[in-house]
Amino acid sequence: MDYSKPMLRDNALKGEVIIVTGGGSGLGKAMTTYFLQLGAHVVISSRNMDKLLTTAKELEEKTGGTVLPVSCDVRHYDEVEAMLAAALEKFGKVDALVNNAAGNFISPTERLSANAFDTIIDIVLKGSKNCTLALGKHWIDIKQKRSMVLNIVTTYAWTGSAYVVPSATAKAGVLAMTRSLAVEWAKYGIRTNAIAPGPFPTKGAWDRLLPGELKDEFDMKKKIPLGRLGEHQELANLAAYLLSDFSAFVNGEVITIDGGEWLKGAGEFNMLEKIPEEMWDMLEMMIRSKKNK
Amino acid sequence: MDYSKPMLRDNALKGEVIIVTGGGSGLGKAMTTYFLQLGAHVVISSRNMDKLLTTAKELEEKTGGTVLPVSCDVRHYDEVEAMLAAALEKFGKVDALVNNAAGNFISPTERLSANAFDTIIDIVLKGSKNCTLALGKHWIDIKQKRSMVLNIVTTYAWTGSAYVVPSATAKAGVLAMTRSLAVEWAKYGIRTNAIAPGPFPTKGAWDRLLPGELKDEFDMKKKIPLGRLGEHQELANLAAYLLSDFSAFVNGEVITIDGGEWLKGAGEFNMLEKIPEEMWDMLEMMIRSKKNK
Amino acid sequence: MDYSKPMLRDNALKGEVIIVTGGGSGLGKAMTTYFLQLGAHVVISSRNMDKLLTTAKELEEKTGGTVLPVSCDVRHYDEVEAMLAAALEKFGKVDALVNNAAGNFISPTERLSANAFDTIIDIVLKGSKNCTLALGKHWIDIKQKRSMVLNIVTTYAWTGSAYVVPSATAKAGVLAMTRSLAVEWAKYGIRTNAIAPGPFPTKGAWDRLLPGELKDEFDMKKKIPLGRLGEHQELANLAAYLLSDFSAFVNGEVITIDGGEWLKGAGEFNMLEKIPEEMWDMLEMMIRSKKNK
Amino acid sequence: MDYSKPMLRDNALKGEVIIVTGGGSGLGKAMTTYFLQLGAHVVISSRNMDKLLTTAKELEEKTGGTVLPVSCDVRHYDEVEAMLAAALEKFGKVDALVNNAAGNFISPTERLSANAFDTIIDIVLKGSKNCTLALGKHWIDIKQKRSMVLNIVTTYAWTGSAYVVPSATAKAGVLAMTRSLAVEWAKYGIRTNAIAPGPFPTKGAWDRLLPGELKDEFDMKKKIPLGRLGEHQELANLAAYLLSDFSAFVNGEVITIDGGEWLKGAGEFNMLEKIPEEMWDMLEMMIRSKKNK
Repeated sequence: MDYSKPMLRDNALKGEVIIVTGGGSGLGKAMTTYFLQLGAHVVISSRNMDKLLTTAKELEEKTGGTVLPVSCDVRHYDEVEAMLAAALEKFGKVDALVNNAAGNFISPTERLSANAFDTIIDIVLKGSKNCTLALGKHWIDIKQKRSMVLNIVTTYAWTGSAYVVPSATAKAGVLAMTRSLAVEWAKYGIRTNAIAPGPFPTKGAWDRLLPGELKDEFDMKKKIPLGRLGEHQELANLAAYLLSDFSAFVNGEVITIDGGEWLKGAGEFNMLEKIPEEMWDMLEMMIRSKKNK
Repeated sequence: MDYSKPMLRDNALKGEVIIVTGGGSGLGKAMTTYFLQLGAHVVISSRNMDKLLTTAKELEEKTGGTVLPVSCDVRHYDEVEAMLAAALEKFGKVDALVNNAAGNFISPTERLSANAFDTIIDIVLKGSKNCTLALGKHWIDIKQKRSMVLNIVTTYAWTGSAYVVPSATAKAGVLAMTRSLAVEWAKYGIRTNAIAPGPFPTKGAWDRLLPGELKDEFDMKKKIPLGRLGEHQELANLAAYLLSDFSAFVNGEVITIDGGEWLKGAGEFNMLEKIPEEMWDMLEMMIRSKKNK
Repeated sequence: MDYSKPMLRDNALKGEVIIVTGGGSGLGKAMTTYFLQLGAHVVISSRNMDKLLTTAKELEEKTGGTVLPVSCDVRHYDEVEAMLAAALEKFGKVDALVNNAAGNFISPTERLSANAFDTIIDIVLKGSKNCTLALGKHWIDIKQKRSMVLNIVTTYAWTGSAYVVPSATAKAGVLAMTRSLAVEWAKYGIRTNAIAPGPFPTKGAWDRLLPGELKDEFDMKKKIPLGRLGEHQELANLAAYLLSDFSAFVNGEVITIDGGEWLKGAGEFNMLEKIPEEMWDMLEMMIRSKKNK
Repeated sequence: MDYSKPMLRDNALKGEVIIVTGGGSGLGKAMTTYFLQLGAHVVISSRNMDKLLTTAKELEEKTGGTVLPVSCDVRHYDEVEAMLAAALEKFGKVDALVNNAAGNFISPTERLSANAFDTIIDIVLKGSKNCTLALGKHWIDIKQKRSMVLNIVTTYAWTGSAYVVPSATAKAGVLAMTRSLAVEWAKYGIRTNAIAPGPFPTKGAWDRLLPGELKDEFDMKKKIPLGRLGEHQELANLAAYLLSDFSAFVNGEVITIDGGEWLKGAGEFNMLEKIPEEMWDMLEMMIRSKKNK
């Protein structure tokens, strides 16, 4: 099967102005690409202006759309306000915010310094909060009729996870913010949702998380019922749906797109898949004979 | 805004054969209509053959697609097997099953007889199980590469709800089946998901649930952050997405489409929306003055 | 450590009359024992009167309490009503119901007949419903001031699980009933809660679930962060707490007692515990050197 | 009924050393009192040394136990380390940590400054993280065999809530930390759990949250199925259970003690409790007559 096909009708996001934090690479870049193909203008931000410029150029050539790269450390509220100002100056409005910028590293928690832990909270939770607060204040202030916030979280936002505890706490915070503001700000026409992606192959992030031989040892595909990782276009399809009016009645929702990964780990007897077919025949006979005794 | 626009590209479900239980009316009819418009063939079933025939004729004329109406009480496994046989005879294959048939009534639980309670469990839980089991056995037997199950549940599948307790227990069971088989049957190419719709206006169901003056007294719109009920096309959009390959990495997921209704009820301080703007000014001053003491 | 110590103060359940379905063996017997030690009278029921009689005699001798064994197939509402009548005749009242009777077997779902699936739904979901409905109607009818329902579910009531799908659907239904009636029937003084036990060693149930060599191959202890199975007294402690007035403000809650089992499976990076200490040293260096480039 | 009775056997926490942040007042003080009565030594901390000294004196006189008051702003890791050092110097060990210190205020989110939002994240999430990290490093370092972390969160940690969004995000983070470390640190003998209290009357906190006439207008009791607020001893009972070995198999769990409050809001048809008894009679007749048509 070919999972890389776009799903929405042409021009589904025509004229929308969308800010994608961390939009210069990985899943942020994939979403940006698809938003452009659907007719949107996109502001991409990160701390690495060189990467942003390269990506902006590449995507404008590929899609014919308009990309505004803005250097911004989302931890600093004034930089976020400056990003918003730049977006407004360029496009005259902003319709949607995708909180995609993140930081993470794998480590036993007891090896972390309090500072290292804080850094992830600051980037992920405070960063998402800063962008959401700045945009929300703006939208409410100018009485914009319709706007969207889309937060990229993770399945361990609700299950927790060892070895990525700072990220787990921060993403859980972002999920709670999603659900809170979906209720509070709906009256201002602001719709708020989240996506929890499972394993998608991304050069930057994945490399940092599982370096060297570990990538082979911990084959994520085996943890996923569907037996494969996600394709970037699949995430982009879902993101575009959630930013479009086609999903206008979806609000406060977090949609998991992980092939069933977290459920496979969670269900108590899922490990029985290791039992081969012929043993089930035998088991059935044993169980039946026991019952008859 | 116009929420009634279809979202997927033309022919997104071209040639797919989809069974929609309870497809003769309400949300089942809305989904069927959109599946047909996207190029699918649809089998609709219910206990009311007259209604099915009327709907089939109406939708074939409207969409130019093919509809097979099959009388089927999903509580009886042999009838479900007969429905499958009829579908195979007509179309040669089945690609997807939408477990949409349901029963419900509002009542204080202590007023229910054990039998009345059982009836809902039988229709909703055993019915969904019967269809899923018959289709699953068939798909596994003929080694079909790719198929989908989509279960229509409700937000009170996980929160529970008073006054609709039989439905709550049954829908919770269907949700657990969704998550279980998404893991177990993924290896057979069967993808399993669910939708939890909030209030959508449906003549049949809603009338039975809230008769007479109560419909005015209990205005569902006030419970929904977005301030409106859902449009049928919005549910159809989501269902079509979940049955299409565009969502091929979504598995084991239940997607809520309720405008934020359940979250609005759940969050502890959401009732503070009743506080008028000017009182917040006053409150701020009071809180500040207290802090300075 | 010794996990087998009772926790509540003497006579904490003095004079309470408690029905424990499936009380003749396993965890039901363990709970019954502790309830008796705390001063309660207990009605135990199951379909196996011989086992009930043996257990009743054994526990009366051990604890000095009073046990009423009642043969009852919880699938049949009239038998449940008869059990209630017998309890009332013997003790003059009933204060609490523990829905503990269950059925389960492991099997690939596609190997199940529709009937086999139904049997589990009937025992677990309809059985729990029958007992709850009969007791609830009685309590409401006589305007009893204070009563409790405690449902024994499982962690896969919300995660689902492959290979035990009938049980998963039925237990999910019981969980939804717990949450629904906790709200609806609180006004009648009925408090409703649930316990989701992880692996506790039980002769009957566990043997049937994992026969022969499989018991060695699938060592549940390895799935549990705490590295051990639960002790029966630990479950009894929690059950006694939930039936006592010490928990009088806990309502609608399901308490998991599984050593962290389901979370360990669920969290995306929990498998990294396989990384040995010295490799973390190396990883840290690799990650740091990458960052500096 | 009298909900203020202690539940555990005498000396259930004999000799345990427990740190309770925010232990000088409110629920922290209630827990501290009960821990002392059960034989524990307690370190209480907050930023207000005067209040701590008063509380310490009062509780020592009342219970005969030993209380160590330590001034500590949990936002600063070095102050947390100093608190740990003081505890170790006084008692020679620490067995358990209760992360109870919190901050909150009600406000429409768009009225908050980024800084005000950060303050709550810093106190609640970073503060809990600082204490947990300092204690965890210590316990792992000295290879202590057995220790406990208990986090006080809230029901809107998973539902979110408008008007308390900073607290919602921070508490959600603490909940994710609970679930993550319950898995990761179990191998070090550290057991991690949480409590989500609903409305308990507390002078300090509640007054600040709902000042003046609003306290009357928003009567929390009406939102609670049980029709009353919680008693402090009820929370203390649950906390003592979770810190004692009686709960030794409970790990990674968050136990809600709210009388069913959040479920009552969440369930879609729970508002039907407003229908008076006699109208149900009428409704039944209407529904039946409709069915027969």
